[in-house]
Amino acid sequence: MNGIKDAEEFFQQSAGKWRSQRTTHHLPFRRAETGGSDISVDFLLKDHPRIVEICKMHEFDPSLAIGGAFVSWEGAMAWDKEGEDHKGDTVFALIPDPENPRKGQLLRERGYAEIVPVAGHYEMDEDDGLILITEYETMSVTERFWFASPDLRLRTSTVQRFGGFNTATFCTELRVTEPSSQEKSEDNKEAIAAITGW
Amino acid sequence: MNGIKDAEEFFQQSAGKWRSQRTTHHLPFRRAETGGSDISVDFLLKDHPRIVEICKMHEFDPSLAIGGAFVSWEGAMAWDKEGEDHKGDTVFALIPDPENPRKGQLLRERGYAEIVPVAGHYEMDEDDGLILITEYETMSVTERFWFASPDLRLRTSTVQRFGGFNTATFCTELRVTEPSSQEKSEDNKEAIAAITGW
Repeated sequence: MNGIKDAEEFFQQSAGKWRSQRTTHHLPFRRAETGGSDISVDFLLKDHPRIVEICKMHEFDPSLAIGGAFVSWEGAMAWDKEGEDHKGDTVFALIPDPENPRKGQLLRERGYAEIVPVAGHYEMDEDDGLILITEYETMSVTERFWFASPDLRLRTSTVQRFGGFNTATFCTELRVTEPSSQEKSEDNKEAIAAITGW
Repeated sequence: MNGIKDAEEFFQQSAGKWRSQRTTHHLPFRRAETGGSDISVDFLLKDHPRIVEICKMHEFDPSLAIGGAFVSWEGAMAWDKEGEDHKGDTVFALIPDPENPRKGQLLRERGYAEIVPVAGHYEMDEDDGLILITEYETMSVTERFWFASPDLRLRTSTVQRFGGFNTATFCTELRVTEPSSQEKSEDNKEAIAAITGW
């Protein structure tokens, strides 16, 4: 709907600083955990040394990459224990399918919970959402990222483990522009009421 | 991905009782509000009197409808004021486009916040998500519903008002089966850690 051509353009549009609100629904416990983070995304060109390095790590010819991103974040979730933090960074490279530039592989240095390199499969849907599926040894993570507007990116993630769903997470990411002049809605209640009630 | 043929099949699969966890991100305030509800969905056949009635209300020939649903819900959100509740019911009818059964119009008795009949446009995407866009006089609501499994339905909604985004809501709906033998994850933390960190 936004007219995003491919994953390269999706991540170019993702470049910048974002303020993220995040809620995790812990499904077996029927509890919600909220939090937030500051995210910074730099788009990396295909010949960037980090992109070349990741391709080699995964034994891909670096010339197949269309670029990638360096993502860093710093945040907190409500249930964090003392000393636990949500701070880190990662680099990933995009390798499109030769016959379809809207799908391919996303190579990461390492997954958030893994020390080995991780590859996920991405595919853009007809609404320009980017779906990313990453299979781990004992679990599978499905994420969908999409732009509601150029300055509002949304994301859902579900984690399936041994066949059952553990968590479903929702992130709303607002682009941080300087100077910040965040508008306040005067009557937000009306907007809430408009959402289908069930 | 689940192989849902059209909106009729989507709502047939939605029939039953659901326990919903819901979080609304109030974007201008950067606050999250959590809540939950019990939802009941009955699929209605095309010749059901309520379907015929709604079609007539919207001045559509009832023979164009493929059926619809009766949805009732009862829940609460954290910021509810005394006496405020989230209880209600609605009926809607589906009128597919003649040339494409995966899109069409969803006719409602009335929107949640409106007393006039409301029609929204639905379209199923290639991942069998159902996107529903409802335009009101001063706002636009975009919802996406999808099944992560036959017993887990997810939903996001964004409300845009006078060009700005007010709220983004996420619902995780677990099918209620009797007897309830809800499994608890022994080590949910591991699953949480597996979600991409940023």
